[in-house]
Amino acid sequence: MPDQDEIFDVIVIGAGPVGLNAAARAVRGGLTAVVVEERLAGGECEFYACIPSKALLWPMELAAEVDRMPGLALRGPIDAPAVLAHRDETVSHLDDRHNVTWVDNLPATFVRGHGRLAGPLRAEVTTPDGARALRARHAVVVATGSDPAIPDIPGLRDARPWTNREATSTHQVPERLVTIGGGPVACEMAQALHSLGSAATTMLVRRDHLLERAEPFAGEMVAQSFQRSGIDVRFGRSATRVERPAPGGPVTVHTDDGARVDADEILLGTGRRPAVDDLGLDTVGLQAKGPIEVDDSMRAVDVPDGWLYAVGDVNGRNLLTHMGKYQARVCGDVIAARAKGEPDDRPGMRDTADERGAPQVVFTEPQVCMVGRTEARARADGFTVRTVEYDIGAVSGAEVRGVGYTGRAKIIVDEDRRVLLGATFVAPDIDNLLHSATVAVNAEVALDQLWHAVAPFPTVSEVWLRLLEAYGL
Amino acid sequence: MPDQDEIFDVIVIGAGPVGLNAAARAVRGGLTAVVVEERLAGGECEFYACIPSKALLWPMELAAEVDRMPGLALRGPIDAPAVLAHRDETVSHLDDRHNVTWVDNLPATFVRGHGRLAGPLRAEVTTPDGARALRARHAVVVATGSDPAIPDIPGLRDARPWTNREATSTHQVPERLVTIGGGPVACEMAQALHSLGSAATTMLVRRDHLLERAEPFAGEMVAQSFQRSGIDVRFGRSATRVERPAPGGPVTVHTDDGARVDADEILLGTGRRPAVDDLGLDTVGLQAKGPIEVDDSMRAVDVPDGWLYAVGDVNGRNLLTHMGKYQARVCGDVIAARAKGEPDDRPGMRDTADERGAPQVVFTEPQVCMVGRTEARARADGFTVRTVEYDIGAVSGAEVRGVGYTGRAKIIVDEDRRVLLGATFVAPDIDNLLHSATVAVNAEVALDQLWHAVAPFPTVSEVWLRLLEAYGL
Repeated sequence: MPDQDEIFDVIVIGAGPVGLNAAARAVRGGLTAVVVEERLAGGECEFYACIPSKALLWPMELAAEVDRMPGLALRGPIDAPAVLAHRDETVSHLDDRHNVTWVDNLPATFVRGHGRLAGPLRAEVTTPDGARALRARHAVVVATGSDPAIPDIPGLRDARPWTNREATSTHQVPERLVTIGGGPVACEMAQALHSLGSAATTMLVRRDHLLERAEPFAGEMVAQSFQRSGIDVRFGRSATRVERPAPGGPVTVHTDDGARVDADEILLGTGRRPAVDDLGLDTVGLQAKGPIEVDDSMRAVDVPDGWLYAVGDVNGRNLLTHMGKYQARVCGDVIAARAKGEPDDRPGMRDTADERGAPQVVFTEPQVCMVGRTEARARADGFTVRTVEYDIGAVSGAEVRGVGYTGRAKIIVDEDRRVLLGATFVAPDIDNLLHSATVAVNAEVALDQLWHAVAPFPTVSEVWLRLLEAYGL
Repeated sequence: MPDQDEIFDVIVIGAGPVGLNAAARAVRGGLTAVVVEERLAGGECEFYACIPSKALLWPMELAAEVDRMPGLALRGPIDAPAVLAHRDETVSHLDDRHNVTWVDNLPATFVRGHGRLAGPLRAEVTTPDGARALRARHAVVVATGSDPAIPDIPGLRDARPWTNREATSTHQVPERLVTIGGGPVACEMAQALHSLGSAATTMLVRRDHLLERAEPFAGEMVAQSFQRSGIDVRFGRSATRVERPAPGGPVTVHTDDGARVDADEILLGTGRRPAVDDLGLDTVGLQAKGPIEVDDSMRAVDVPDGWLYAVGDVNGRNLLTHMGKYQARVCGDVIAARAKGEPDDRPGMRDTADERGAPQVVFTEPQVCMVGRTEARARADGFTVRTVEYDIGAVSGAEVRGVGYTGRAKIIVDEDRRVLLGATFVAPDIDNLLHSATVAVNAEVALDQLWHAVAPFPTVSEVWLRLLEAYGL
């Protein structure tokens, strides 16, 4: 029934921050767009991940800063109900109307329902009112994100474990919490919930360190902080079996050393997988499990005629909201340019940052802030690497921030070109410093130029001077 | 008595952070050095300015953050004695032995006494044990800093007003404080002392705004914050007469509108002047009042044979510790290169940052962080200017930091080259973000490159994205 198709220049499947940005940039480029979303417009990030998790984490970060600062004292422990109520405000009480209005105002069309590909330049949407057939003149953008991966552990699925969704949206803090995994989600939510009342928090970490994608010292510093605060971090331990006799009741996790952990809730932080279920990838000749591989213009590489794009977690490049949004800007601009027959290789129309310098912050206490390549990655990629590390706590700017402000910084230098390949800062409240490294890494600013970027005294950003001095400048 | 001269490659007069760095870089370059200091080695900055003032300011900054954060509450007002005690720790209880040891270990020679120039390549030092004559083989570096300027107001000098020295080192917080001036020192110390117990704080500001070297909105936001907290800021008011009948007793300031302010202490923040008293400038043909004008290698321009250098406040370039230290690195490296007959124009051997992008942070609440040119300065300098502003409180990263986190950012773009000339951020706890702008301004990173420097979500650094989007990228 092609005559009943609704026709747009661009179809975007998925209205997380990534899909919304792709649509916005395409519309800004003069195209019409429809955005399809089954769940909340605004996506996982706004409602069940980045935003609520940080709203749960900042009080802990601030409480730690107060603890270090002579002359200040908190009245008591963190008031968890107040923090949860503020969290509810930050997620608009799970109401997405503002985002739907935002789409309306682009202007673009919003369709609520499950969208799937239906052959070249086509999508179909299952809505509460029936099916709708969409056709795109120029492009279809998949921005469906990712879902938590659930490992194959006997009893785990039946125990209905928490993922980021349940952990960030909870209105009750479990007294006893057990987490599985050692990545950002496990680390952030274990520490947040511990600070809000999960007195008995146990982390089961299959490897012998946390945050495996970070420099090793980062995971070590976070683990030390966890252990100091009473979180029971068990390295090298895997869950072998999970029991939850009554739904919502206590849960028991058996581990590979024969021990067991009894808890009130179990939280999974064991990675994510591309959200491609029932996405119709088979209708366009792609493998059903994803990720959808794309080129640097975000165009799917294995689809003839170049009409399919994928941005954000679903393309597997970097599972980070801000990188998905960046890809979406590239994608929307490229689609608009190609639709209009304009040059499609202007500076903003290729994704260079995902490979060169994607930043990431893990909002633990201390925060882990990193950009670009780690030393291991840089060496594996064949660069002539030199690294420098410095104790952030030894910088004058740290001393004035109280007693016991400590941290560590590391830069990775490409000796052939004398530019930065990566940087890591681990310290409290240091997330804003990362962007200086992100600029340096992505713009490939020469070290000799960085030398003239003077850091103000006395701030912890002066660690830059110390790093460059230690390098030999 | 030339045969009794003590001979070094370099003589440094002044052992503040600037002089110490000049000596260290010269020694690193293979030269011998002597450092002369009359007062504390470590200088105004470490003992009476940057360090103690920030130790007094951070508790206020943190208290404001706690106020904004649901779920946290302070037990009571800031405990001033505890803050003052921590301040004492940060200034090593005014003991400078660690810095003298640091000089010893460079290795270099430390001489305690009043140093003055005594003709070309010569200095003399008045020490408690008599005079010492020093001779330099290659260079003399003046790094004597600056002193508070005391305006010519009847009765003011006799009233023995506080300057930064007394304000930052006090062990008693006056109940009633009156400040004169609207610059960084007046703003920082008025707010710090107000937060520590100066319930009645009155600021007399001759102009109609604070922080005249900043973008106008910065001074406005700081003034609003002051007024909200109960500081009485009086714009357009000058002191005409000061009375202090009894030393240490109450002080009265009469203003040009016929009003009077009664207070327990009076604090001056009316600028600084080069510290050149009894420096022997006349012995080398220079005017006695300073500043000592220098070229971009820090060499005094009006002295034959090029042996005299001046770094830090005394050269009048930028009265900021970190810029003085930067100049000192340039200077020490240049002196060493010239002494050895090596090229003296390597990348680190010219001061480019003072003109292009000197950063400054005013540690008020909100903080004022700025680098490079303001809009007014850029226009006056003849650039083709375009500016963009953005509300930092509207960034997602602000929302998760509590209720009422507000701020403003502004970038100054050179439209001819599409690079940044300057940036200003006014917001709480944003000092670490400044270095990203400092890198961009000093390295002249093209806007199209900055576009690929993605800010992590959700942090306030995402204001970069909003600024660039608003610019049109």
